[in-house]
Amino acid sequence: MSILVVGSVAFDSIETPHGRVDHVLGGAATFFSLSASYFTDVRVIGVVGEDFSAENEAVLTRRGIDTRGLEHVAGKSFHWTGSYLKNLNEAQTLKTELNVFETFSPKIPAAYEDSDFLFLANIDPVLQANVRQQMPKVKMVCGDTMNYWIHDHRANLDKVLIGLDALLINDGEAKMLAGEDNLLRAAKKIIATGPKTLIIKHGEYGATAFFSDRSFANEKVGLTAVPFRAPAMPLDAVVDPTGAGDSFAGGFFGYLASQPEATPAAFKRAMFYGGVMGSFAVEKFGTERMQELSRKEIDARFQHFRELSHLE
Amino acid sequence: MSILVVGSVAFDSIETPHGRVDHVLGGAATFFSLSASYFTDVRVIGVVGEDFSAENEAVLTRRGIDTRGLEHVAGKSFHWTGSYLKNLNEAQTLKTELNVFETFSPKIPAAYEDSDFLFLANIDPVLQANVRQQMPKVKMVCGDTMNYWIHDHRANLDKVLIGLDALLINDGEAKMLAGEDNLLRAAKKIIATGPKTLIIKHGEYGATAFFSDRSFANEKVGLTAVPFRAPAMPLDAVVDPTGAGDSFAGGFFGYLASQPEATPAAFKRAMFYGGVMGSFAVEKFGTERMQELSRKEIDARFQHFRELSHLE
Repeated sequence: MSILVVGSVAFDSIETPHGRVDHVLGGAATFFSLSASYFTDVRVIGVVGEDFSAENEAVLTRRGIDTRGLEHVAGKSFHWTGSYLKNLNEAQTLKTELNVFETFSPKIPAAYEDSDFLFLANIDPVLQANVRQQMPKVKMVCGDTMNYWIHDHRANLDKVLIGLDALLINDGEAKMLAGEDNLLRAAKKIIATGPKTLIIKHGEYGATAFFSDRSFANEKVGLTAVPFRAPAMPLDAVVDPTGAGDSFAGGFFGYLASQPEATPAAFKRAMFYGGVMGSFAVEKFGTERMQELSRKEIDARFQHFRELSHLE
Repeated sequence: MSILVVGSVAFDSIETPHGRVDHVLGGAATFFSLSASYFTDVRVIGVVGEDFSAENEAVLTRRGIDTRGLEHVAGKSFHWTGSYLKNLNEAQTLKTELNVFETFSPKIPAAYEDSDFLFLANIDPVLQANVRQQMPKVKMVCGDTMNYWIHDHRANLDKVLIGLDALLINDGEAKMLAGEDNLLRAAKKIIATGPKTLIIKHGEYGATAFFSDRSFANEKVGLTAVPFRAPAMPLDAVVDPTGAGDSFAGGFFGYLASQPEATPAAFKRAMFYGGVMGSFAVEKFGTERMQELSRKEIDARFQHFRELSHLE
């Protein structure tokens, strides 16, 4: 099944203990699309400026990603400058230049209207809601957000959350969203008024999915009580954490879209694939690693994740 | 098989967001013993003062723990005062009164000499080495330590580490011990010069075992590359984190001692039992929860851990 993703396509300038790069291709929708492209058809909606080259776009199209929804306008592309020198687990934003993103108004090409799944990457919840409304027939909607929208745009965000099949956020965001320091209580609180399922990403410690009795159409028993935790793989070099969460989302949602039905078993495997794609993303700067993978390599690491976490 | 444990038997005064308790039974050897007692025979070596009552001792003996190695001397028992009000994941030590522990010199009763396994809880590495030397015939030795010994008593500690089958420490301790911020690289560095296997505890995110080609007598293949990660269970109330790590160690080592052989499969199940016992420990203040469990309850939670983390 096809996935439509809306979010940022951008340039990133990043410094980590392993080096620095300037104006490399980035953005949540880019990482998500590349990651999901190993599993299913992906269509992207976003906006870029005149500095976005044919070669930049080819990074996406080479992976079979449909970029007809990528609007090219006058001006410069969104540019994020960040540092991981102080803390490899949390980006310090040095500069955010929204540029063409400031006036972004998502338009959905007619060719995208039959998309099966929708991913609302981390952007203004007003835009997320806008796209959601334009895609009334999608089978499943997942979304991401961040502290800024939780803190300063709560009312708008709440309208998006209530329509999500799954929300993917990290520990800090979940605690902030719920106003609750205990993760399980926070998860219960978020699910009570928002998404059917909540996935909380723990960085190097993996991710946990919290289910509700609305999570699955045909299988309700037992899932309210037991969350599901996917591991992450200990890596001896985290070169650049940028895009790990979006790559997780792409692996998770891409795998789920490739399955005939979103059963609990498929959902759990999707969590593992999310972890797998996140673990690849951080091995090189920017999207470099996400461009060059093979499904064989991905499945080998999936087996590695299983070996890492399963009893015999 | 029987386990001999040497470590602190103490009183704790604790405050957490859930309340406060004064002078409750605690200490690493106490938590370890209670936890391991659900799996195998446990013998304890430690020292207590005149304030240690018959009822305190009965907490151990009721669980079948052999306390003949618990020395009673004049003075007060070790007393630790700590707070989790600032951070539930890390104790803030308010006061450490060593009391009778200051002059503790472990003596091993003749009846303990045939112990099969040895656990060196977090005490002065000089005492750990002393006990280790008195027990040359044990089949397996595991140990714990903490920042203070790593930082200020490194040479003594190194002598202990090199003789360990497994070292159990937390993330911060592993990074400090290796002088390395990446956990996998830290683990490799520690294993290169010390214990055969390293277990790093991640608190609410579980624990990871890092193996070496010395970890298992008869099965070497593949284990050098793939660590093993046991989950922790999301809990909606962490009442008191004190003793979680020692209870993990007791579940891990106790289960391993109950098995005919320390195979990789048994070792991995032991990691899960460690997580299970740690998850129980934090549900009530002090050792309360560890006193009242049943093996049935423990095995039910073991299944819960499996459901939480296993693909179908």
